[in-house]
Amino acid sequence: MELNKIYKPVQDDLVKVKDILRSIIKVDFPWLSEQLGHVVRGGGKGIRPALTLLTGKFYNYNLKYLLPMAASVELMHTATLVHDDAIDKSMVRRGKPTIYKMWGEEPAVLMGDYLFAKAGEIVSDTQNTRVIKLFSQTLATISSGELRQFLDAFNLEQARQDYFRRISSKTASLFSLATESGAVLSEAPEESVEALKEYGANLGIAFQIVDDILDFAGTRETMGKPIGSDLAQGTLTLPAMLLLKRYPEDNPVKRIFENKDTDRPQNIKLAIEMIRDSSIAKECYITASEYCTRACRSLSLLPENSSRQALTELARYVIERKV
Amino acid sequence: MELNKIYKPVQDDLVKVKDILRSIIKVDFPWLSEQLGHVVRGGGKGIRPALTLLTGKFYNYNLKYLLPMAASVELMHTATLVHDDAIDKSMVRRGKPTIYKMWGEEPAVLMGDYLFAKAGEIVSDTQNTRVIKLFSQTLATISSGELRQFLDAFNLEQARQDYFRRISSKTASLFSLATESGAVLSEAPEESVEALKEYGANLGIAFQIVDDILDFAGTRETMGKPIGSDLAQGTLTLPAMLLLKRYPEDNPVKRIFENKDTDRPQNIKLAIEMIRDSSIAKECYITASEYCTRACRSLSLLPENSSRQALTELARYVIERKV
Repeated sequence: MELNKIYKPVQDDLVKVKDILRSIIKVDFPWLSEQLGHVVRGGGKGIRPALTLLTGKFYNYNLKYLLPMAASVELMHTATLVHDDAIDKSMVRRGKPTIYKMWGEEPAVLMGDYLFAKAGEIVSDTQNTRVIKLFSQTLATISSGELRQFLDAFNLEQARQDYFRRISSKTASLFSLATESGAVLSEAPEESVEALKEYGANLGIAFQIVDDILDFAGTRETMGKPIGSDLAQGTLTLPAMLLLKRYPEDNPVKRIFENKDTDRPQNIKLAIEMIRDSSIAKECYITASEYCTRACRSLSLLPENSSRQALTELARYVIERKV
Repeated sequence: MELNKIYKPVQDDLVKVKDILRSIIKVDFPWLSEQLGHVVRGGGKGIRPALTLLTGKFYNYNLKYLLPMAASVELMHTATLVHDDAIDKSMVRRGKPTIYKMWGEEPAVLMGDYLFAKAGEIVSDTQNTRVIKLFSQTLATISSGELRQFLDAFNLEQARQDYFRRISSKTASLFSLATESGAVLSEAPEESVEALKEYGANLGIAFQIVDDILDFAGTRETMGKPIGSDLAQGTLTLPAMLLLKRYPEDNPVKRIFENKDTDRPQNIKLAIEMIRDSSIAKECYITASEYCTRACRSLSLLPENSSRQALTELARYVIERKV
């Protein structure tokens, strides 16, 4: 199913979120708004703001608070991408040049800071100190997770649980911020808040596992960025971990991690081929699906409506997506 | 007068602010707290948190809100320094190695993000959406100001007003956040809030002008970092602007800015000497003093107490300081 069909219950309001995002850049950086347009309005999937709006639809759907929340979640996501690209020295994202590529590392760092600040400014429009605090806590979780990922780069001694802790920090935390805040701001009862938070956390883990599969199994064209980039940066993801386990003696991942001077592009290519030709991707998809099943299970105590249907379909989309 | 004497009315509470700062790092990064100690607790002057506490002493001095505010202001300041050092590739600050020097650029960016997040988390403990929003707006002002400084680097075509706009964004905005939030959280009447905000803004400008003078007139030992670093980074400050004006035909600043390949260390040395041997520093001090006078004038409508006395003395300190 296509995303815009899934988003149908909140389609008109997602347009309003994009309007908020567009207006932000225009005020402070009118001369940059053209260049920044594709970064901030994003060719992205907009899953996070959609989650905030969809989870806000079970009780008191108050756009006065849900719109700024949805915009701030997307903006925080954008800011982390801008910093990630600067740190990873990534040239393209979503098929477009990154801010790092356009301006260099230093302005990318400052622009990321600026976007974090604007996200914080907008989230304060919710006038709800619970979600405001949650917002900052999530940013702390994401950045300490990213820091741990950086300090763990090119380290083979990582257990499966390290991987799950890492993706839980860097991805699932923002998904669960999106869903929990949607629930809180629509005045959902506490057990529904908890259920929607759980939905977001599990969906986020599934989403990141699929991302990590696609970094091996996708194509540069559909992904809008080079394949095998995790390995190039020394990030050990689930597919690579399974490869290490299958061929403990010698394998391209081990060669990349143990000897940085080895022919890395050749070994990355080989790792991609080995993962594609094996059942590793399938195994990872099974794990991701389990998280999606868990996510959908949380929805059972919520009122049945078009949003609940959409959230269920979104869980299926997360697994089936090719991008 | 020494700072600790000026801080006397809030001395015990400043210790509590340091305790909050210390505890933050301990939780998430216990193994780093040793290394981070000097960055977060700072050998800094602690002017910003002192301003929040002192300005909070005119009306309802409620530490439940003022302590987290003071800590968040100092933490935001620390986070901006961590990013600045990464961007400027600075090796020492306050006589100690920077995070950039210890770990490299990428972890410094992520650690800065983490500190921004923690600052945001703590400011939400004020439970006051007005100061929370102000906090994020200030961060947006600082980072867009820094971005402008970066984009303006090595550009000679900057007017005096560009300089004042820049230091107003990058320094004075945080000073006025510190004072305005102290006033708001102590439930000061609106005209007192306005007066204390003005005090902070003018004090901040004076502070930055003196910082810029000391980058020429100070010593590496007292400053804890190399002298002439602004010129090295292509940042045009007031003393350098005055030098350009006095010797419009040929001067070392012009040579540095127009030809990056010139013997830069030699020209920086020469610029330092020319500024020291002229009345330029004195002229800049006169300008800074004017801002301090303006700052103190704002205090006149506030109740007379030991805090008002301290704020007046602080304005004098800002001019007289050698560090």
